[in-house]
Amino acid sequence: MEYPSKLVEQAVEEISKLPGIGKKTALRLALHMLKQPQAQTTNLSEALTNLRQNIKYCGTCHIIADTEECTCKTLSRDTSVICVVEDTPDVLAIRNTGQYNGLFHVLGGRISPMDGIGPDNVKIDSLVDRVKSDAAVKEVVLALSSTMEGDTTAFYIAKMLRDTPVKVSTIARGIPVGGELEYTDEITLARSISTRTLFSTEN
Amino acid sequence: MEYPSKLVEQAVEEISKLPGIGKKTALRLALHMLKQPQAQTTNLSEALTNLRQNIKYCGTCHIIADTEECTCKTLSRDTSVICVVEDTPDVLAIRNTGQYNGLFHVLGGRISPMDGIGPDNVKIDSLVDRVKSDAAVKEVVLALSSTMEGDTTAFYIAKMLRDTPVKVSTIARGIPVGGELEYTDEITLARSISTRTLFSTEN
Repeated sequence: MEYPSKLVEQAVEEISKLPGIGKKTALRLALHMLKQPQAQTTNLSEALTNLRQNIKYCGTCHIIADTEECTCKTLSRDTSVICVVEDTPDVLAIRNTGQYNGLFHVLGGRISPMDGIGPDNVKIDSLVDRVKSDAAVKEVVLALSSTMEGDTTAFYIAKMLRDTPVKVSTIARGIPVGGELEYTDEITLARSISTRTLFSTEN
Repeated sequence: MEYPSKLVEQAVEEISKLPGIGKKTALRLALHMLKQPQAQTTNLSEALTNLRQNIKYCGTCHIIADTEECTCKTLSRDTSVICVVEDTPDVLAIRNTGQYNGLFHVLGGRISPMDGIGPDNVKIDSLVDRVKSDAAVKEVVLALSSTMEGDTTAFYIAKMLRDTPVKVSTIARGIPVGGELEYTDEITLARSISTRTLFSTEN
């Protein structure tokens, strides 16, 4: 496409590097900004630069934070459970359920030999150290994706924690709420039968 | 939603002000940037600020440009036709068809009394001046949306140009290419019959 201006072209080029945004959406966003007050674009630019330059990761749980000590220790959380997730959005999703009040550990990825990501590229050693050095930890909950890579990562972590006294659990795999039995794939159905739980009349 | 960091929250706040981007997409974009090299975010911020601060509008046709004299006059264009459009994306869309080689005039909006936009808020006076002062102009093509506001704007422009010798035409309204007659609404069908054209075996 031929752009009316070099400045527009550069902006479109940079915006369209973001995931899920093509050239056409990028152009729409750039032209939208031109119609808004200049302060809005300035604020956006500053917020992005600020985020990228000043963000910290908590030294303990590796969650994104404003300081190197995140709120994971200071809040009134259950310090006997650590939930292991792949990335920060997972932390937010689990927190939003309101069903979990323990600590977190963000791996920053999952073991994926195909992509050249081995156990050393994710924060597994740091998890093992954390579990071993903190006697308060009684359980590690693996909340990983139900994919080949997620399962590989889960197996590896479980193996590394075998010698410790902590209980290693995983979030349940089964039919999603609202899902019809008829349309559920065999593997999910088989897993949901083998890991069946006692029926509760409370929920 | 509770964010893990004030910086993330600010970035999400600013990104989600863009059209079509909600808080969830904004969060995904912000976290994506954290995984990319810092230069990418810096480039994006600079391109946006640069665009917003340094963009110019051509004094004649009001197209977005890098200087106040756009390429509208220098290129080998047909200077006897002016195509009137609402906004810059329309210029790009029409140029991309390869069917039009004349000049453009960007109104910067359309008359919409409901939104408080009157004839004085769009560049209609400037179009009339342009037509009157340039004897080379023989035709004005109205390429406006086929909506109430687009039609109102078209009528107003046609009225303003009534005393000039230029021909005022409008792009054809009818069944879109690929459209089925059966599913076309009555008004479009009626318009396509009343404005029927001679059948050509050439296209």
